[in-house]
Amino acid sequence: MTAQGTDSPEHCLTHTPSRPSSAGAGAGVLTVLFSVFQPVSHETLEADVEDEGPAQAADSSNPGDGLPQYRLSEIKNHGPKSSRPWVIFEDKVYDITDWIPAHPGGEVILRAAGGSIEPYWDIFAIHKTPYVREILQQFVVGKIHPDDLEDGRPRMNDIEDPFVSDPTRDPRLRQITAKPCNAETAGEDLAEAFLTPNEVFYVRNHMWVPVIEDTAADAHGITIELPDGDVKTYTVHDLKAKFKQYSVTAVLQCSGNRRRDMTEHANKTNGLQWGPGAISCAKWEGVRLRDVLKDAGLPLDDLPEDAQHVQFSGLEAYGASIPIHSALDPRGDVLLAFKMNDLPLPRDHGFPVRVIVPGTVAARCVKWVSKIVVSDEESDTSWQRRDYKCFGPNETRDLDWDKYKSIQEMPITSAITRARKKSADGNHVEVEGYAYSGGGHEIQRVDVSLDGGKTWDQASLVDDSEQDSGSKAWSWKRWRYEGALPTTTEAAAFVVKATDDAYNTQPQCYKSIYNLRGNLATAWHRVEFDPRKEKGCADS
Amino acid sequence: MTAQGTDSPEHCLTHTPSRPSSAGAGAGVLTVLFSVFQPVSHETLEADVEDEGPAQAADSSNPGDGLPQYRLSEIKNHGPKSSRPWVIFEDKVYDITDWIPAHPGGEVILRAAGGSIEPYWDIFAIHKTPYVREILQQFVVGKIHPDDLEDGRPRMNDIEDPFVSDPTRDPRLRQITAKPCNAETAGEDLAEAFLTPNEVFYVRNHMWVPVIEDTAADAHGITIELPDGDVKTYTVHDLKAKFKQYSVTAVLQCSGNRRRDMTEHANKTNGLQWGPGAISCAKWEGVRLRDVLKDAGLPLDDLPEDAQHVQFSGLEAYGASIPIHSALDPRGDVLLAFKMNDLPLPRDHGFPVRVIVPGTVAARCVKWVSKIVVSDEESDTSWQRRDYKCFGPNETRDLDWDKYKSIQEMPITSAITRARKKSADGNHVEVEGYAYSGGGHEIQRVDVSLDGGKTWDQASLVDDSEQDSGSKAWSWKRWRYEGALPTTTEAAAFVVKATDDAYNTQPQCYKSIYNLRGNLATAWHRVEFDPRKEKGCADS
Repeated sequence: MTAQGTDSPEHCLTHTPSRPSSAGAGAGVLTVLFSVFQPVSHETLEADVEDEGPAQAADSSNPGDGLPQYRLSEIKNHGPKSSRPWVIFEDKVYDITDWIPAHPGGEVILRAAGGSIEPYWDIFAIHKTPYVREILQQFVVGKIHPDDLEDGRPRMNDIEDPFVSDPTRDPRLRQITAKPCNAETAGEDLAEAFLTPNEVFYVRNHMWVPVIEDTAADAHGITIELPDGDVKTYTVHDLKAKFKQYSVTAVLQCSGNRRRDMTEHANKTNGLQWGPGAISCAKWEGVRLRDVLKDAGLPLDDLPEDAQHVQFSGLEAYGASIPIHSALDPRGDVLLAFKMNDLPLPRDHGFPVRVIVPGTVAARCVKWVSKIVVSDEESDTSWQRRDYKCFGPNETRDLDWDKYKSIQEMPITSAITRARKKSADGNHVEVEGYAYSGGGHEIQRVDVSLDGGKTWDQASLVDDSEQDSGSKAWSWKRWRYEGALPTTTEAAAFVVKATDDAYNTQPQCYKSIYNLRGNLATAWHRVEFDPRKEKGCADS
Repeated sequence: MTAQGTDSPEHCLTHTPSRPSSAGAGAGVLTVLFSVFQPVSHETLEADVEDEGPAQAADSSNPGDGLPQYRLSEIKNHGPKSSRPWVIFEDKVYDITDWIPAHPGGEVILRAAGGSIEPYWDIFAIHKTPYVREILQQFVVGKIHPDDLEDGRPRMNDIEDPFVSDPTRDPRLRQITAKPCNAETAGEDLAEAFLTPNEVFYVRNHMWVPVIEDTAADAHGITIELPDGDVKTYTVHDLKAKFKQYSVTAVLQCSGNRRRDMTEHANKTNGLQWGPGAISCAKWEGVRLRDVLKDAGLPLDDLPEDAQHVQFSGLEAYGASIPIHSALDPRGDVLLAFKMNDLPLPRDHGFPVRVIVPGTVAARCVKWVSKIVVSDEESDTSWQRRDYKCFGPNETRDLDWDKYKSIQEMPITSAITRARKKSADGNHVEVEGYAYSGGGHEIQRVDVSLDGGKTWDQASLVDDSEQDSGSKAWSWKRWRYEGALPTTTEAAAFVVKATDDAYNTQPQCYKSIYNLRGNLATAWHRVEFDPRKEKGCADS
């Protein structure tokens, strides 16, 4: 069924033969429609929208006139499994059957079928443009019955909350956003243990948490697609039965860790305002991606030229990719992981299986992974091609998104997680924190200053004796320093900077590394400490 | 022949049964005797000298009394190939036959046989201690005939200059030291070409240049020693005939590049005061070390546990090592190279064969390589275990040399090599330079400031279209920037900083990365520019 019975100029404009009903037709708008939930600046968005003449504001048309009326209960029957899925937007009903093949985000749109699409547009905010509304208007089939409307909108208790099945989170996590859940590990918890306990491991979700029952975990399938078109599917059960399992201790870190500091010390940034707790360390267990790709038929010793990237898709429709050489490096330890700190993966961390790419930004470690494609291109999601890049401090407008590479290997960083008085007079303090460098680089040295960076001393590396159960140094080093406060100031400024075994070190100031998205805020970490208080935390 | 006929207490002290005559006896002093020619600070040296009671000053003894006298012409007969090699020190003659097996530097000591050891101690300055003199005194056999002395010392024209056979250098090279030759590439030459011409490629010699005639090059042998004791020797001819040859474009950079800047902007540093020209880029051709080690019998897929490091020794007795995984990484492109920019290796650069470890400090790329040992330890030279490490800014005394890892992979750096007026009024300038990061990391972005770091813009990457003929980005990116000078200042300060694909960037100031040895002076490079002049160079 398609929208009929209107002949307004607006509809003429969109009812052309170019009406999207195939993947081909949708390709042109792919970069516009499917992006992260975080707001995208108006300038950048406009630059990418194809010029199809002046955009028509949805409000200016009246496509609902004369349309049939439907009750919410009727609409519910057009759910994800129906032959003709419908969605609601404001007071209208749309049949999206013909749009699904062209939808850049794929079948994830079916999550909304039978109900309102608005909660999903709240997640994928990039949809909130006249251009996207225009596409939707092509598929209008009716309007909501007035008895199911309240102030002109569908009654909310009949709209499903996409996050209704999300797990309950530990109250010790410091919540940044609730829906989707983004929550960082508290300073105390970062300082306490080498392996972050699962329940306080930071959570970075782009969407809802997919629901897979425990009993269905082994049947969960991962489809592998090779450049020659060969497709093979392994269930979790297959993977566990067929391949040797490995254990790797590795840090995961969000590229936005400490973004809040960049905002405070440099300029406004676009993204979740994390403190220093968007990082944690765990022991991961699973099978090697390399072994699975080899078994699936990828010739590792004679790679085809179009095997350049390995793309991962998660059940919730998140997607990202890593370079083929990262995926295949025998010392890269890339896993399809089932376990985290000796327990099955918690739902928030990808149950029943996620990708772990040690030394690489967590945004590539796709959770709830269901599809792996070996391709000549990076994943085409905005999470791959836009969100995780660093432009220069001055590059804030008219960005050429292809100019820089996607963040993969993480640069060196460190942070203060806890500071405490060690003597009654408050002049002697203990400062603790972590230091981490990506790419398997081991931390060599942690320099600490109690006087704002004037003089330095070296912290003890607490985790120096911890065994990394992997081929390289994928984990962090927590550090501890005790010293006397400088006598000349009332409030002291503690600063930390680390150096890795390639002798890379951290930049001094946020301003010099400022980027619009606030990625990789790795400047020296500075915490003001008032000796009149018992203790101070980076996140307090 | 050994020293006889004295019974002074000093001689009793040294004529004990512990007189070194085997490798075992020499092991204890190994770290003291064999080091770089650069001066070692008194504090650090003393800390490592074994406590054998108060050191006896050579001057206070009189070991020459009653000794036979020898003419310089007689001494010359006790050269490197004689059965009893002698050396001269001051006015005495020493038979070093029994010391050679215990000498930590090995047979390089024979270079001095038949003549004076003093020019070599000028190179290996660590020998200039009472402790080393004490060892030498055990081997005194005579004194120089008074007719061959001038002011109590042997006549200099009879002493061979170890550098007499060194090649002539291109006058465009900026000489830091003449003997050994250390000379940097001029800013103009760095700016001019992607591949630095051989004749202006920077020279970093620790000693003299070994002499191998062109006709003897193919017969030059490299001995490979495996952990199980197996030894195999390949001539250059064998290597060329047996193994596939590869070509790799790679930067070599001294860890002391820009040390002069650290000295100027932070504090005194101990080492050659290089400007920004201790770096160059060339195309190297040779065989893969990995292939040779495999052929020699090293089981690559089942490495023995004691295969941890690959040690290289050069003909002039320089030595260094790299981790086994660097040596064997199929994408590491480590070569035994015969050619440089399509020509046979110049003598200054290792003729007939040198090691090339792309992405790694040039100090590991041993020239004139003659021996390769796969071992459970790093090379025991000071070049491996001391000289190329970075301690913290505050760590200037009582150093624990094992605390930090030897420099291998190079951190990111950049420099300005040339700045020129582009308009008659001098308000428009062109600034050029290079950016490089080790470990195969590609340069992403070069930020340039014409106002001392207040505002930034991006330079064009000149070498973006250059093909790296290797597995990773081993070469540099030269960059160019044109812009208007700020109107508010008479003299402008140009600053550059670069970012690589792991988004590591450079530290802002030298003070924060200051280390006693002045290694890795990678802070933002800053050049003052006077618009009243036509042009300015980083090294002018």
